[in-house]
Amino acid sequence: MYALDPLFDTLKAAQSRLALETRQAKDRALQSVMDAIDASRGLLCKANEADVLKARKEGMREALIDRLSLDQGRIDGMLQGIAQIIRQDDPVGKVRAGWTLPNGLVVEQWTIALGVVAIIYESRPNVTVDAFSLAYKAGCAILLRGSSSALASNRVLVGLIKQGLAAGGGIAGAVALADSGSRDEVEQILRARGKIDLVIPRGGKSLIRRVVQEARIPVLETGEGICHIYVEPSADLAGTLAIIENAKTQRPGACNAVETLLVHREAAAFLMPLLAKRFAGTVELRCDEPSKQAIGTPPPGLVLKDAVQEDWETEFLDYILAVKTVEGLKEAIAFINRYGTGHSEAILTNDLASAQAFSLQVDAACVYTNASTRFTDGGVFGFGAELGISTQKFHARGPMGLEALTGIQYRISGCGQIRV
Amino acid sequence: MYALDPLFDTLKAAQSRLALETRQAKDRALQSVMDAIDASRGLLCKANEADVLKARKEGMREALIDRLSLDQGRIDGMLQGIAQIIRQDDPVGKVRAGWTLPNGLVVEQWTIALGVVAIIYESRPNVTVDAFSLAYKAGCAILLRGSSSALASNRVLVGLIKQGLAAGGGIAGAVALADSGSRDEVEQILRARGKIDLVIPRGGKSLIRRVVQEARIPVLETGEGICHIYVEPSADLAGTLAIIENAKTQRPGACNAVETLLVHREAAAFLMPLLAKRFAGTVELRCDEPSKQAIGTPPPGLVLKDAVQEDWETEFLDYILAVKTVEGLKEAIAFINRYGTGHSEAILTNDLASAQAFSLQVDAACVYTNASTRFTDGGVFGFGAELGISTQKFHARGPMGLEALTGIQYRISGCGQIRV
Repeated sequence: MYALDPLFDTLKAAQSRLALETRQAKDRALQSVMDAIDASRGLLCKANEADVLKARKEGMREALIDRLSLDQGRIDGMLQGIAQIIRQDDPVGKVRAGWTLPNGLVVEQWTIALGVVAIIYESRPNVTVDAFSLAYKAGCAILLRGSSSALASNRVLVGLIKQGLAAGGGIAGAVALADSGSRDEVEQILRARGKIDLVIPRGGKSLIRRVVQEARIPVLETGEGICHIYVEPSADLAGTLAIIENAKTQRPGACNAVETLLVHREAAAFLMPLLAKRFAGTVELRCDEPSKQAIGTPPPGLVLKDAVQEDWETEFLDYILAVKTVEGLKEAIAFINRYGTGHSEAILTNDLASAQAFSLQVDAACVYTNASTRFTDGGVFGFGAELGISTQKFHARGPMGLEALTGIQYRISGCGQIRV
Repeated sequence: MYALDPLFDTLKAAQSRLALETRQAKDRALQSVMDAIDASRGLLCKANEADVLKARKEGMREALIDRLSLDQGRIDGMLQGIAQIIRQDDPVGKVRAGWTLPNGLVVEQWTIALGVVAIIYESRPNVTVDAFSLAYKAGCAILLRGSSSALASNRVLVGLIKQGLAAGGGIAGAVALADSGSRDEVEQILRARGKIDLVIPRGGKSLIRRVVQEARIPVLETGEGICHIYVEPSADLAGTLAIIENAKTQRPGACNAVETLLVHREAAAFLMPLLAKRFAGTVELRCDEPSKQAIGTPPPGLVLKDAVQEDWETEFLDYILAVKTVEGLKEAIAFINRYGTGHSEAILTNDLASAQAFSLQVDAACVYTNASTRFTDGGVFGFGAELGISTQKFHARGPMGLEALTGIQYRISGCGQIRV
């Protein structure tokens, strides 16, 4: 029935010890984990091949097979992530603020580890290492609940992590894999009030919906990205084309890829023909009437469709771009705040007032001026890795690194003060 | 069915406008709210008398009647709270961190208003003003769902707030009272995904449990306080007695009042007889065997009982103190982390190492050294007011002031950067 309870207890006890570790000790343990993974690449690749083989047999789509697969380059990437986390400051033990009350009491606000966290994620085995490393550095114990498709890879990874921790004087009990594969396991995690301080779902819509519905513990929601780029007439034309192409095609399956282009009426006439030419043969355009008119005669090879309402509400994750013409900044902002998912939104402009208003009024985790939306990523932001990208405003927002795993504690020192 | 939907929409629209207000404009509007309340004290007192009369008729306990009642002094307190919130810095529009990526992109982490918040609270009409003022200063729209017992008072208060906002050039739509009194109203609030960004339950256990169970939106839990004071032999004796008495008797119904005393075995012999004498006739002691032995012959008038397991798990909110003898710091910390509710915990000692270890290892929102636990309060901490005291570690912890109503947004500026 409550099969995970002993595991929860072990994690909690380990977290109490981990919270007292120095940065030196935590970094040494993480270095040792790097060494353990590096020394067993063959073992890891073999387990991963078994996962991939099984997934292929079961008919998994190639895009997902790609997410599941590890190669030497991806293992290098994992290790670089740990190295970058090692280089970062300890996020706990900081005094964020402090002041003295009129009666002489000193109030300090310290950062502390959030406690025991759980992550429920799909497919990608690198998340196992990323999430563990961030948690360990932040002094949090972590329960990893990966997908059954990555079970062999995750078992080897968690084994190597534990082996590395043990060898490096770390606390091996601070990480655990929930690997029974049963859905009941997820239910136990979501109801573990007082045992798990936070759960992070990282995966598709239905996983996130289930977690939000069923959780009785705090949830850090990661969400889909219907991202927009809004182009003003004052934007640099060559830069605009390069940014739109990059945001759409550099990795269309990523949540920070652009899905809808909002083009100012006055920019459509010169931008759309060039964009149509650039995307002919690669990206399908779903245009509203004015942007379609602006294209004129479609260049050979361009797939051009009429946009319908559903296109504004869809995260394509594919070589498809919806295009809408707007009358100006106000309409663009309103459209984004209506159809956006609060992920990453960009304005391309040379108008300072527009750039400022866009930043202030667009309600999203990441707001860009004159850059591709593809930069929303913990690694790119310098966090070493990420737990996911929060699209909610509560507790953490945007790419979540070490800071998202901390809380605060007030420490108050006196010399006998009583309240009168 | 969804009677509150139009209200949610109004709040959201008002919040978008409020988020763009300057600190000057927000402070001016809050000053005008102060003036409006101050000018209508008579009206407010009359409505409150009606609430109190009705509550008495319905047999409400005197302690709750007291919480419900307003008088000139309490109205003064409300107004002082607003004045202190006006004096505080604007919590939004701060750049908390900023850095430049290797490719030249500038990443800034800004503080922003959390959005539309709802508070579901019991009895005390001053919460209406406290919660509104904090929310307004933080740029949040607020939906107030008070108890039916305070309905007349809350209606007048919210009317005066709106009147003050209108007169002071503020945004009157940024506050609303959910006043139908139906339980269905609470359900609508708890399910308002995408419409309400945060709900704060402030009241008894059953209210908080219901909110945690049913909410599909982020919850900021406030909780009960089973607070401890741990006394070491090195503690100053006179100070110790004064602190224990203050923490227990200055307002026993408060969540930050002490409920259990942990006394070091070597301190019991001299402390317990004096404490028994001090509490004879006022505070009932529920002692474990060694602390009872230490008292010796009970002084006249002392109510002395044997402590039972349940006493360690009870928030008495009364003139009752449980007493347990411990062998030392380690046992005290373990006991607190087991039976405490993560609220306010104190150590009385002159031993530096003990004080440090206690602060590091006790898992609570507020950890005190040599002071009464009664100071855990937004007003005392200098926040002007509080939304409640968070006993969870997620998003906000301890007394919640303006900071608890903020989130972050990344603003990224470039000059054409694309991801390679």
